[in-house]
Amino acid sequence: MSLPDAFHEIAKRVNNWGRWGADDEIGTLNLITGEVVREAAACVRTGRRVPLALALREDGVQTGMIPGRVNPLHVMVQINQEIFGPGTVACSDDAVTMGLQAATHWDALSHVSHSGRLYNGRPAGSVTAHGGAGFGGIDKVGHLVSRGVLLDVARARGTDRLDGGHAVTPEDLEAAEELAGTRVRAGDIVLVRTGQMRLCLAGDRHAYGHPSPGLSIRTPEWFHARDVAAVANDTLTFEIFPPETEDLWLPVHALDLVEMGMLQGQNWNLEELSTACGETGRYAFLLSATPEPFTGATGSPVAPVAVL
Amino acid sequence: MSLPDAFHEIAKRVNNWGRWGADDEIGTLNLITGEVVREAAACVRTGRRVPLALALREDGVQTGMIPGRVNPLHVMVQINQEIFGPGTVACSDDAVTMGLQAATHWDALSHVSHSGRLYNGRPAGSVTAHGGAGFGGIDKVGHLVSRGVLLDVARARGTDRLDGGHAVTPEDLEAAEELAGTRVRAGDIVLVRTGQMRLCLAGDRHAYGHPSPGLSIRTPEWFHARDVAAVANDTLTFEIFPPETEDLWLPVHALDLVEMGMLQGQNWNLEELSTACGETGRYAFLLSATPEPFTGATGSPVAPVAVL
Amino acid sequence: MSLPDAFHEIAKRVNNWGRWGADDEIGTLNLITGEVVREAAACVRTGRRVPLALALREDGVQTGMIPGRVNPLHVMVQINQEIFGPGTVACSDDAVTMGLQAATHWDALSHVSHSGRLYNGRPAGSVTAHGGAGFGGIDKVGHLVSRGVLLDVARARGTDRLDGGHAVTPEDLEAAEELAGTRVRAGDIVLVRTGQMRLCLAGDRHAYGHPSPGLSIRTPEWFHARDVAAVANDTLTFEIFPPETEDLWLPVHALDLVEMGMLQGQNWNLEELSTACGETGRYAFLLSATPEPFTGATGSPVAPVAVL
Amino acid sequence: MSLPDAFHEIAKRVNNWGRWGADDEIGTLNLITGEVVREAAACVRTGRRVPLALALREDGVQTGMIPGRVNPLHVMVQINQEIFGPGTVACSDDAVTMGLQAATHWDALSHVSHSGRLYNGRPAGSVTAHGGAGFGGIDKVGHLVSRGVLLDVARARGTDRLDGGHAVTPEDLEAAEELAGTRVRAGDIVLVRTGQMRLCLAGDRHAYGHPSPGLSIRTPEWFHARDVAAVANDTLTFEIFPPETEDLWLPVHALDLVEMGMLQGQNWNLEELSTACGETGRYAFLLSATPEPFTGATGSPVAPVAVL
Repeated sequence: MSLPDAFHEIAKRVNNWGRWGADDEIGTLNLITGEVVREAAACVRTGRRVPLALALREDGVQTGMIPGRVNPLHVMVQINQEIFGPGTVACSDDAVTMGLQAATHWDALSHVSHSGRLYNGRPAGSVTAHGGAGFGGIDKVGHLVSRGVLLDVARARGTDRLDGGHAVTPEDLEAAEELAGTRVRAGDIVLVRTGQMRLCLAGDRHAYGHPSPGLSIRTPEWFHARDVAAVANDTLTFEIFPPETEDLWLPVHALDLVEMGMLQGQNWNLEELSTACGETGRYAFLLSATPEPFTGATGSPVAPVAVL
Repeated sequence: MSLPDAFHEIAKRVNNWGRWGADDEIGTLNLITGEVVREAAACVRTGRRVPLALALREDGVQTGMIPGRVNPLHVMVQINQEIFGPGTVACSDDAVTMGLQAATHWDALSHVSHSGRLYNGRPAGSVTAHGGAGFGGIDKVGHLVSRGVLLDVARARGTDRLDGGHAVTPEDLEAAEELAGTRVRAGDIVLVRTGQMRLCLAGDRHAYGHPSPGLSIRTPEWFHARDVAAVANDTLTFEIFPPETEDLWLPVHALDLVEMGMLQGQNWNLEELSTACGETGRYAFLLSATPEPFTGATGSPVAPVAVL
Repeated sequence: MSLPDAFHEIAKRVNNWGRWGADDEIGTLNLITGEVVREAAACVRTGRRVPLALALREDGVQTGMIPGRVNPLHVMVQINQEIFGPGTVACSDDAVTMGLQAATHWDALSHVSHSGRLYNGRPAGSVTAHGGAGFGGIDKVGHLVSRGVLLDVARARGTDRLDGGHAVTPEDLEAAEELAGTRVRAGDIVLVRTGQMRLCLAGDRHAYGHPSPGLSIRTPEWFHARDVAAVANDTLTFEIFPPETEDLWLPVHALDLVEMGMLQGQNWNLEELSTACGETGRYAFLLSATPEPFTGATGSPVAPVAVL
Repeated sequence: MSLPDAFHEIAKRVNNWGRWGADDEIGTLNLITGEVVREAAACVRTGRRVPLALALREDGVQTGMIPGRVNPLHVMVQINQEIFGPGTVACSDDAVTMGLQAATHWDALSHVSHSGRLYNGRPAGSVTAHGGAGFGGIDKVGHLVSRGVLLDVARARGTDRLDGGHAVTPEDLEAAEELAGTRVRAGDIVLVRTGQMRLCLAGDRHAYGHPSPGLSIRTPEWFHARDVAAVANDTLTFEIFPPETEDLWLPVHALDLVEMGMLQGQNWNLEELSTACGETGRYAFLLSATPEPFTGATGSPVAPVAVL
């Protein structure tokens, strides 16, 4: 079995291998220039900060369906321990075990391979048990601050939440862009709201997981045309799930991460942001969303904040 | 044994209990207003972003001296797994176990207690094995973006690195403030550079750990007078270690976290930032340093970024 | 709220505090003498070995109902790693994160307290986040080999599996003892089979969990009268759950662990053993069931083996 | 680079591939018959039980030299938690993260490969990140009880501890066998004492690690000739380390695990056992050493007990 021709045709059109040199490990993040960041800073009007991460807790979004993607197990290793003797200052310390893709996270470019290749044509075998991602690890990102644009597809379509079977198309993105009143441009981080997170926030993790609305296989070309730096949304699977075409699983992952070299974010909570943008009519902001620099990791939890 | 009178006298002068209400769990972070954030955004000139986190890796800064504060154990739980059958798109996933205070981190207000009390007078017993910090957890922070000011004490004193026995005094802070060319004000996040991180970066974790320069017991009053929102530095212990006064261990922790309700950051890498600020002569910037929202945690790793 | 008088009356009758000295931390394990072990060895007839542990895997018996009691997350940290260079011998290594009470396990005496006390009258506060069980840790056991006796209550009652609401009584134990053809005596480890494990093995972890048959509050006196060394069974909760008396939760735990100082085992798979004993008509054997010596732990996974 | 001819010649002589069928995953454990176990039971004289496991604790034998092989991090997830309301019975629960080969352990047959092959000719690629060892996992062992024989090489050579450079030869084993007064035979588990553990027990983990005495490349043929079921010793590396021949690393691992299909045990504490056997002059006993059944694991902690 191999991927269908239709996939490979799109792949050619969005491919960025070599665009930033043969050794590049960050792909479209190269598009975030100092100029882009200055413009992002200029988007700050009220100084309101909106957090976009889900709480990190044992009853998080994972249901056990994906092996190894475990919700955070937070434990105390010291509780009011008077380290230096009775009556002294007391300290509490904690530790955690968690799947790096379990909660609100970024996929690193190394998260996905197809046909034996990672982004920039590197062998899939660059990822090993000992050391993790030898190429395209999340630690290569360093910093991730840019202009963020909320494309509120649910609102643009007049609903709180898209149906589970709704594939978000380029037309949907453009309708939301029109609602946003700003044009998506090179170096932007695009946040696509489907409203699916409302299921999770209401406590139904299984319904949240699938069926899930998400990005259509047609969207990578749109993001490529706009030279977007990264895309995140409010679903578990990022792309529509089950997929649009039978037996073509995770095509958007393969196109975004492997072909384009573009980071994807999942499980972002865009509800408060949607409200805030709706109130002001402004959908562009400074977005700060630097992943934790785990050496050789194929993803990382992130605590993104939009500054409006 | 109890804490000496000298401690309690300072404690009274810097105490903020009740200042933001009896139920407040974030202390001096209340000082970060929309106005402060707008001014922070206005500090962005070149759009250069400087990351301040250490790499998260198994050979991190911890040496085993502090039980339970374990360096990150990063493991792969899937490697190029063709989840949906041979020849399909392949995924790699990872997991981690780590001490939340092991690397570049924020201490939550609940991290320390003294005399049976946490910040705002809450009982130390609010921290339990089941649930962690019932009060003052790091998850209460939500977002942490403000104006950052680098007080480069090492440079102001004409050295690369302060001696292990150097207690950073208010006078040191003011000399560095003069070098910075900006006055520290309400809502700022102050980054104090001692240069101690150079030992760690050179590979000597033991020397980095102690003896360590760090903040003097006299500094909390200075931070209180300026109404600083949070303070971070480039050492393992934050305050000078061993301490200035025999048998008075961790007094700065107790004053900052318990009395003032002010977050502390440790193990921040300020070397590149020092160079960048030195080149431009500008020591104020937009600082984005939101902790990961672990429910009930007494601290969190953070990947801070300064935007210049 | 406090425990009812009925509980305290039984408690008095089964209490072993001080019986083996004020410093004793192993309780009824003191009853396993060299003589008992020699008799256990004499039970070996065919040399057949029957393992009693469940597989340790991510889809284990835990359903997430008990916070922190996580199924094993097994991960590879090296896969065929040629540590000493290409073409050399290659090694694979693994790591695990798991709840110590998550699978087939022993409860240590420190696992439960009531009215502020552990076994032998020690303060419940002997268990701390830093160091775990300062008294009655599972590491104090050292070794656990004795004569095992299967009391196959399900078979004695002519069923494969007791109903969820069935409290196993002393009368049930004596009927099973008669079936076993041997009298339970001092130092024995008694394995009580309810058949509830069949639900788990059939894949229904939720039904396995509760409602569950299990030991009645009347059984501790029976075990005390016989001077049993330890008791294990094939349920998640050990005792009947929900309990026999409203608002008296886990009374058997409190009587066995705190008052008697007798180890309890849970989630033991007694199905193959039941078949083997049924075939031969012999229900006594050498039982080897030493817990892993985790320092300061309140329980431990165990891989028990019956040698027939 | 490939393994030298000298290695391959020995490999041919000790190879057991196909001996117990093409699908066999337990190798020489097949040699433990019911008869062997009955004889093991007959070795029990006093009923004395000697535990052979090291304490499982954060300051265990690992020094950080082997990445991922982390000492146990034991944490409390509940401490005297009154789950069912104030005044009810209170429970304490714990969890652990640890390397499966970090302490006293068995190597599974899948732990090592050479030339792309595991035991029985299976591809090394049978070990994957997702699922671990698809062949030769430690869970295949099921039970491990047999006759144990202590070959106290250190005592036979009149010393407490062999030198770091001492390779234990077949001649050493035979001298110790003579001291033991019993002939090693099919199905036995052989425990080889070097005395190296004394360094670890004295607190010097680094000296314990290496240089280390251990088994010579000449011993696999001796174990093969005797049809031993498994071998364990009291060192970190099992075989002499650094190795006897430059650039031939871990040859004994490759011969024992891959060619013969024989389990190896490391970090076993044989000091008390040595004393006990020395006192009685009897070096054969019932040995119970069942690994924890981690599905797909390449090793497991074990709490072995010798019953004398």
